[in-house]
Amino acid sequence: SFLPTSISFPLIKGEKWKQESKKKVIHSVKVGIALVLVSLVYLLDPLFAQVGENAMWAIMTVVVVFEFSAGATLSKGINRAIGTILGGGLGCLAAILADEFGGIGNAVVVGTSVFITGAAATYSRLDPRIKRRYDYGAMIFILTFNLVAVSDVRANKVIKLAKQRLSTIGLGFAVCIFTSLLVFPIWASDELHRSTASKFEKLACCFQGRLEEYFAIPDNEENLPNADVKDCKSVLHSKSTDESLANFAKWEPWHGKFGFFYPWDKYLEIGEVLRELAALLLSLKVCIQSSQQPEPNLRQGIKEPCEIIGLSLAWIMRELGESILNMKRCRAKAVIAPKLQSIKQELSRLSSPLQIEGLEIDENLAISTFIF
Amino acid sequence: SFLPTSISFPLIKGEKWKQESKKKVIHSVKVGIALVLVSLVYLLDPLFAQVGENAMWAIMTVVVVFEFSAGATLSKGINRAIGTILGGGLGCLAAILADEFGGIGNAVVVGTSVFITGAAATYSRLDPRIKRRYDYGAMIFILTFNLVAVSDVRANKVIKLAKQRLSTIGLGFAVCIFTSLLVFPIWASDELHRSTASKFEKLACCFQGRLEEYFAIPDNEENLPNADVKDCKSVLHSKSTDESLANFAKWEPWHGKFGFFYPWDKYLEIGEVLRELAALLLSLKVCIQSSQQPEPNLRQGIKEPCEIIGLSLAWIMRELGESILNMKRCRAKAVIAPKLQSIKQELSRLSSPLQIEGLEIDENLAISTFIF
Repeated sequence: SFLPTSISFPLIKGEKWKQESKKKVIHSVKVGIALVLVSLVYLLDPLFAQVGENAMWAIMTVVVVFEFSAGATLSKGINRAIGTILGGGLGCLAAILADEFGGIGNAVVVGTSVFITGAAATYSRLDPRIKRRYDYGAMIFILTFNLVAVSDVRANKVIKLAKQRLSTIGLGFAVCIFTSLLVFPIWASDELHRSTASKFEKLACCFQGRLEEYFAIPDNEENLPNADVKDCKSVLHSKSTDESLANFAKWEPWHGKFGFFYPWDKYLEIGEVLRELAALLLSLKVCIQSSQQPEPNLRQGIKEPCEIIGLSLAWIMRELGESILNMKRCRAKAVIAPKLQSIKQELSRLSSPLQIEGLEIDENLAISTFIF
Repeated sequence: SFLPTSISFPLIKGEKWKQESKKKVIHSVKVGIALVLVSLVYLLDPLFAQVGENAMWAIMTVVVVFEFSAGATLSKGINRAIGTILGGGLGCLAAILADEFGGIGNAVVVGTSVFITGAAATYSRLDPRIKRRYDYGAMIFILTFNLVAVSDVRANKVIKLAKQRLSTIGLGFAVCIFTSLLVFPIWASDELHRSTASKFEKLACCFQGRLEEYFAIPDNEENLPNADVKDCKSVLHSKSTDESLANFAKWEPWHGKFGFFYPWDKYLEIGEVLRELAALLLSLKVCIQSSQQPEPNLRQGIKEPCEIIGLSLAWIMRELGESILNMKRCRAKAVIAPKLQSIKQELSRLSSPLQIEGLEIDENLAISTFIF
């Protein structure tokens, strides 16, 4: 009775798993379709006659650029395009410069420029900010620069080659964009939005789990669910996933509920607060297992007020999560704030004779700092 | 007097930063050298006469495979080699099969095989276990399969082409291995080893910082260091870094202190325990800031025993970290265990009239479960 959602929770999980694998199948089929489309360049003779062996670059682009989410695909594609153009342009300059010298001088100039550009671009790739957003572009820059600089071809031939290569890369990119964005798109922004909202639910479950554990009679201890600890840890370790999702979400064009200049960084801030809360819940678990805690029978005395507080806190968490999911201004100021006030009073009434309550106050504080 | 290491800590940090940037410069220079070496295939005429335009694949291999640590380079190189061979072989089979049919049948067979292989390999890439270790190999498999299957060439020409391409890829890989492993190698295993050991130091500093904060007189509050919170969070969010380092470390051959079958998973386990401790320390911070804590003047009464306990705990943490760094069996059973026992007794003596001590016990418990 005290944990009304625990029955429906496995159901939600199964549902989520089904959705995840459906997405995976859709993505795989989309990659297959994109590959077949781009292979047509080879298979249809008139097209192949135009681009020749450069058709290879179209296939390469599709294989390398097509990522799970639309944002990741766009980010890689644009990185690839800019890297190719910059690298090709600079490589051309280096080749022309090297041509001025002849014989061994040519090789020396090419070698030096390859060394300097390669080392400098590699060093810039190690910078965290560049690595996060432009790593792939820098790699393609190095590659294109090298290929163009070393292949000692006359200027007019270079321009023709560059045109063909760029057009095939553009073709591959167009196929990617078409299949990735227009056919059953998988948005990183949706994923970030949903995962952030579901974190509230996860933490609420985790919190209820802790309360249940604390008031459980030790006999049926093996019946206790351990799944919420895993959920709690998944929230705790979500930093890198969130960051890459937010990064991809920024590349995604306007769609659905998300406009341009949508404040994705706010999601990262919320995630940070939720991770701190998850850390708190995890240490609450260690706290409960401590041998310094009072006897189970003694705990029953404070069971009722704690359950009321726990239910309200979990309810507030779910309310916040839902309001984020549905993008509605939640009833925070009208409903939640007085509720938090009463919880705080109730807790300070309880906490004088009780050790563990000290922690719940902090949780409360964390939540209130989060709301205001 | 109470924080003897806080003076030397910034020094250590500057030292570490210097080492980090030295490593980055070394890596960049190595990449530059590798690129020049592999460009020689183009620049030296006799070599170029042998491989022709396929020399491109050698450059591509170096640019794509050369990673920061030796383990990452090896892992990518081996993935690339296996992916190329498997994809090329299967692609050949598909091309030969398609050749049996003529005209439009050929295109249909090639298209179908491209679709099925592409979709299946992409689906397998979404599996977390495969993604972690073989993601790059699967991508190269799809790429090579496609390129070989669509390029409708006679069997004897294919074998010649495959031989040339494989030999240039092998050449590029050899250059990578040579510069990555033999010239100032940067080992992922060293990095994992050092970072695990330094986590102990970070947490010890963080713990001392908490104690100082608790007993500080509010006047000079702005003097308090906030760096340790950042350190604590960096430990908390180290999961994905640790996992990728351990993954690369497994690919690295025997070197220095690390033999074959070195138990890298143990590092992940230690990391997990340390992350839980970091979570505990973070929530200790929230706890200290709670308005429910006693007045600063009242806190001074328990200052001395707490400082003794804190110093011993920090000492134990540093001892453990050092013993891991130097790979010596630490004096755990002889020295640390009785020390922990006395801390525990001291704490239970203190904890009856005091709220916050409840947390320190848990920390103690976490440490003891970690030692035994």
